[in-house]
Amino acid sequence: MQAYCLTDMTWPEVEQALKTVRIAIIPLGAHEQHGPHMVESCDAVLAEEMAKKLAGLLYPEALVTPTINMGVSPHHLHFPGTISLEPSTLIAVLRDMIRSLKQHGIDKVLVLNSHGGNQATLGVAADTLTRELDVQFLYAKTTASAKDVMNRTIQSTLYGHSCDREVSEALYLAPHLVREEKLEKGDIQEGKWRKLRPGNPLQGFYYYEEMTRNGCIGDATRASREIGKEIVDTALERLAAAVKEVL
Amino acid sequence: MQAYCLTDMTWPEVEQALKTVRIAIIPLGAHEQHGPHMVESCDAVLAEEMAKKLAGLLYPEALVTPTINMGVSPHHLHFPGTISLEPSTLIAVLRDMIRSLKQHGIDKVLVLNSHGGNQATLGVAADTLTRELDVQFLYAKTTASAKDVMNRTIQSTLYGHSCDREVSEALYLAPHLVREEKLEKGDIQEGKWRKLRPGNPLQGFYYYEEMTRNGCIGDATRASREIGKEIVDTALERLAAAVKEVL
Amino acid sequence: MQAYCLTDMTWPEVEQALKTVRIAIIPLGAHEQHGPHMVESCDAVLAEEMAKKLAGLLYPEALVTPTINMGVSPHHLHFPGTISLEPSTLIAVLRDMIRSLKQHGIDKVLVLNSHGGNQATLGVAADTLTRELDVQFLYAKTTASAKDVMNRTIQSTLYGHSCDREVSEALYLAPHLVREEKLEKGDIQEGKWRKLRPGNPLQGFYYYEEMTRNGCIGDATRASREIGKEIVDTALERLAAAVKEVL
Amino acid sequence: MQAYCLTDMTWPEVEQALKTVRIAIIPLGAHEQHGPHMVESCDAVLAEEMAKKLAGLLYPEALVTPTINMGVSPHHLHFPGTISLEPSTLIAVLRDMIRSLKQHGIDKVLVLNSHGGNQATLGVAADTLTRELDVQFLYAKTTASAKDVMNRTIQSTLYGHSCDREVSEALYLAPHLVREEKLEKGDIQEGKWRKLRPGNPLQGFYYYEEMTRNGCIGDATRASREIGKEIVDTALERLAAAVKEVL
Amino acid sequence: MQAYCLTDMTWPEVEQALKTVRIAIIPLGAHEQHGPHMVESCDAVLAEEMAKKLAGLLYPEALVTPTINMGVSPHHLHFPGTISLEPSTLIAVLRDMIRSLKQHGIDKVLVLNSHGGNQATLGVAADTLTRELDVQFLYAKTTASAKDVMNRTIQSTLYGHSCDREVSEALYLAPHLVREEKLEKGDIQEGKWRKLRPGNPLQGFYYYEEMTRNGCIGDATRASREIGKEIVDTALERLAAAVKEVL
Amino acid sequence: MQAYCLTDMTWPEVEQALKTVRIAIIPLGAHEQHGPHMVESCDAVLAEEMAKKLAGLLYPEALVTPTINMGVSPHHLHFPGTISLEPSTLIAVLRDMIRSLKQHGIDKVLVLNSHGGNQATLGVAADTLTRELDVQFLYAKTTASAKDVMNRTIQSTLYGHSCDREVSEALYLAPHLVREEKLEKGDIQEGKWRKLRPGNPLQGFYYYEEMTRNGCIGDATRASREIGKEIVDTALERLAAAVKEVL
Repeated sequence: MQAYCLTDMTWPEVEQALKTVRIAIIPLGAHEQHGPHMVESCDAVLAEEMAKKLAGLLYPEALVTPTINMGVSPHHLHFPGTISLEPSTLIAVLRDMIRSLKQHGIDKVLVLNSHGGNQATLGVAADTLTRELDVQFLYAKTTASAKDVMNRTIQSTLYGHSCDREVSEALYLAPHLVREEKLEKGDIQEGKWRKLRPGNPLQGFYYYEEMTRNGCIGDATRASREIGKEIVDTALERLAAAVKEVL
Repeated sequence: MQAYCLTDMTWPEVEQALKTVRIAIIPLGAHEQHGPHMVESCDAVLAEEMAKKLAGLLYPEALVTPTINMGVSPHHLHFPGTISLEPSTLIAVLRDMIRSLKQHGIDKVLVLNSHGGNQATLGVAADTLTRELDVQFLYAKTTASAKDVMNRTIQSTLYGHSCDREVSEALYLAPHLVREEKLEKGDIQEGKWRKLRPGNPLQGFYYYEEMTRNGCIGDATRASREIGKEIVDTALERLAAAVKEVL
Repeated sequence: MQAYCLTDMTWPEVEQALKTVRIAIIPLGAHEQHGPHMVESCDAVLAEEMAKKLAGLLYPEALVTPTINMGVSPHHLHFPGTISLEPSTLIAVLRDMIRSLKQHGIDKVLVLNSHGGNQATLGVAADTLTRELDVQFLYAKTTASAKDVMNRTIQSTLYGHSCDREVSEALYLAPHLVREEKLEKGDIQEGKWRKLRPGNPLQGFYYYEEMTRNGCIGDATRASREIGKEIVDTALERLAAAVKEVL
Repeated sequence: MQAYCLTDMTWPEVEQALKTVRIAIIPLGAHEQHGPHMVESCDAVLAEEMAKKLAGLLYPEALVTPTINMGVSPHHLHFPGTISLEPSTLIAVLRDMIRSLKQHGIDKVLVLNSHGGNQATLGVAADTLTRELDVQFLYAKTTASAKDVMNRTIQSTLYGHSCDREVSEALYLAPHLVREEKLEKGDIQEGKWRKLRPGNPLQGFYYYEEMTRNGCIGDATRASREIGKEIVDTALERLAAAVKEVL
Repeated sequence: MQAYCLTDMTWPEVEQALKTVRIAIIPLGAHEQHGPHMVESCDAVLAEEMAKKLAGLLYPEALVTPTINMGVSPHHLHFPGTISLEPSTLIAVLRDMIRSLKQHGIDKVLVLNSHGGNQATLGVAADTLTRELDVQFLYAKTTASAKDVMNRTIQSTLYGHSCDREVSEALYLAPHLVREEKLEKGDIQEGKWRKLRPGNPLQGFYYYEEMTRNGCIGDATRASREIGKEIVDTALERLAAAVKEVL
Repeated sequence: MQAYCLTDMTWPEVEQALKTVRIAIIPLGAHEQHGPHMVESCDAVLAEEMAKKLAGLLYPEALVTPTINMGVSPHHLHFPGTISLEPSTLIAVLRDMIRSLKQHGIDKVLVLNSHGGNQATLGVAADTLTRELDVQFLYAKTTASAKDVMNRTIQSTLYGHSCDREVSEALYLAPHLVREEKLEKGDIQEGKWRKLRPGNPLQGFYYYEEMTRNGCIGDATRASREIGKEIVDTALERLAAAVKEVL
């Protein structure tokens, strides 16, 4: 499938593409532990792969920028290898990218984000960068729009990080991220974190190791490429349709 | 009901209270248009009233700080009177308040927030201030934990701002906020905002006047003190229980 | 007396008021210890009450914004309950408020400040925000313009915080701030602070407890509503006249 | 008179001096128009000359740092040649200087300031840098402590910039700053500035050309070296005594 | 060749590696136009490939972090597709990365930078982050240490961007970056830029299109994999030796 | 030789000069240890003296601003007396100065810098301030353009700080900076710094005392006024010619 990806283009090719491009897709991931069965670049790679597919569905009106391959991951910092950006740093990166894109005539961007920990920062970015830079700033969690498919295909009740869902998505999009011989269920701990999960009266910060000893939740042993394909393709279809509606 | 409120105390009284106080409740509101039937301080007053009641339920372990009476309201800036803080400003205010509280020996705070537009900023604040100041930073939307009651008592499908729910809460907590003779249904407009509401594949910024001509949504004419009382009291009970669990 | 107060208005009411309003009055206080006989919100409440009265005198050309209810109070941080904003935070709040007001067509603001510790920050704000935002930025200490009345009515030589003057003002404007049964004279300590008071060759920072053990100066037992009324009403008259001259 | 001046010392000489030095004097001036009869470096040079004399009086306990030769002068920006620092820039310079001095074992500083426009910024610096850097931060207006001498020797009622007083001080401290053949009285304009001068109910920003067409106030033709000497020497004596009291 | 790359590792693998790792290599590139014959991700990819090889030479003492795939490229912003970070943004990213690495026990970093436009920012980062974070901060231009090889193998006198040298390096390290059928000589323009190149008395900013119409300099048609291999392998050897000397 | 120096001019004189002035020269130095034989203001004074001479050569088209008499000197902070600005502070000072100059109609500046430690910061300033303020921002190391003369006249191989070259320049430009009776050779230490000097594969931060015990390098006993004169005059000629070419 043909798709415009800035990283693979020369400037005369970009110049040509800009005649039809109306929106830039910024893949946003994270660099953080994903348990014993996924490598730490997982979120960055999944966001990039999804972005390319989405740009294909929107061809020739969308263009993928370089991936922001680190994100806001303080919760995971106690696991070896995690690298976390401050929210203000991530906003600074987005500001500079969007300013550059505007210089090239693009004033609509979609941040395609694969990491929950970035969502609050993106909410703040939407409120500030939209007005500061006079652009349309959209953001989306990569597969959140396929929640109904997840509810049908994922059996774990607590999932969302290196779990049945995420491993499934990776098996479809980028199987090299997965150590299939190491797949494990989340090793859940009891603690205050339960009182701070979405859906509770209170919210607040907790470290991931308070919740899970091996860094995963859900049950990755139940993951499959088929589940991943259904989730991802459904989400892509809905995202593409949604983008077309607001362009 | 007895409750510790910093604004009503002398320093020797605070000194005495600090012997039992374990958490500070920071009421956070907004100053923004609420249609023709609510005054603009609505969110600030509701957060303050809720905070006092919550501190009462947690007496003598909680203390209410001064109210942050403006919030992040860029969506409403085109309606006369709205005053909006940048997210970075709100975080600076929270940082200074929490630093001061820590000086007095309090290292747990609950930001009790009545305004949806502040939530992303609070998420960012939780990620950063928790680690920067070495405190437990909790936040809660005032009545969000009574979602089940709302689902049962509110008939409008699109609600959340100067609507059946909010007017009901005000009629119970602070009836002077309501112009009962002016109650109106939201004057909803069609537009791109529908594609950017929570639950859609995409999220992004839109101005409130794109959604509603009179600045309200839902149907405030269906509001009642009884509905408000049930929502508020349920939420307060759940919040109090939740705080006790994490103290 | 009629006065426009943003906190008590709906947006259509603000829209109507903006037809005649030419200046916004921003009440600025502090949240800090005021000895054993005044509650900590004292400055915030006095600024707000004065602002309302001033807006009444300037009706229909002035409008009161929400009160900034915390200020720059590092000197008081060692007394329980004090909450202090950094000067840069206060300037950020003022910037956001004034930007919002400008959006509504108001380009003149008067910060009505009741707390001496805010004055240097306001001086800096005047130098920077005036040019940055292209507005007329005025500020005034609430009752400083009635210095002659104070000199005649106040017997203490060292006064200015929870003293004869301030308690008198409160007895007139907001008597609930005063614990009349606890009125005390300042319990003055000797120390370097004497060398750093206004009027000395040197200036510098000192903590308030170095100066006074109970947090007051002057002699609050000599306060009276009558003195407060004369000071406040004289200042209001002069402030109203001064504002009219520069509008 | 012997005095330690960092600019004229080698590091082994500084090392030796640090055995007795207890305070650093930071001369702070401005670079701004001073009418047709004084050069624009006036404030910087006067502060430096005063600082050297003061360090002489305090020898061997004081040391003069390099001069901050520009200050906060937005009021003068419309006169050719004025260069103005933002208040935040001046504070950053002070922070870096004091941090460096602390590295060398000096934790007391006196900013000796000749320019009124810097005073609010110094007030803010005192409130913030004292606590942030854990130092004693003092500041003084160069000759303000000789106010009584000024009242006796200066005949102009409105003075303070390139006036009888300042030219007198320069004639004593650095006569090359003065164009004696060009001495002029201030060419005062009527305007709103009168309502914003110290002593009025309101304060606010105005440009200097609104007040005086030639950039001076007072009457420089009445200046004399004798007046300058009395003002400066009186102030120096009082400053030296005051510093000794707080060391 | 075995090498530790954070992006390809799970956290237990990182934990194991940290037993021997003493330095982290941060690949730093840019996203900018590279003429008609190289794609815009060129610098990012070359830095990453070099970093992996260097980590191999230093195995098991070095570890490669995620690549910073955008850099400081204002000079190229007028060519379609270039994305440029502000220097302060790049420093923020480096700060956050190094803080995270320190959390994992690594206090030595080498930024391996392929883009000249980043060098000044890295110099500033070295001066500030070293002291702020208490780490050893090293940086190197990818192949600058093979200057002697370049002088022998490159015939162009003005080279350094999408030229004989860079295309040669890419043909060896990542040939997919090169459009071999489009290779062109730099289309050099006359202009002030000649007076601002390194080696001239003055330095300053100029846009790249003032220097070259097609965005290249040098003569890419003379590039070869052999030249690239000699330059790259020589540089790698010298870099590895140098790192070993300072570990 | 006639030259426009802002510090020695009144505003009417500046107004007159601005009719022909096209560029401002900002002298930038440092305040840092220069061994036992040079005073710490060395760099600031040399930059100022060179700037005056350069402005003379460019008369009446150039004007010298006040000198920035402190710079980025963290490497020297362990020697008594050194005062170092953060790079961000220096950029803030430059921004404010250039904004002020622009207000007066000057949109070209040359920062004439005598201190190597400032060069990276100036590179960053060039990239950012040029675009932010829409000016031509040039910078030059004072005598770097006379490298050929240095190579011929300086016998030390490692030189650059309080060495044969710098002392020679001072003997010509400002002999009072030199303690001629104390001239010493650099007391060089072995250490990692050798691996981080320009020309090595790696660069990084080191403290100056790791390199030299007395704070000098080279051999100052070989300095002479004649060598200094040749270096300085050659550089001045080349700088003047270069500035004329880009005006």
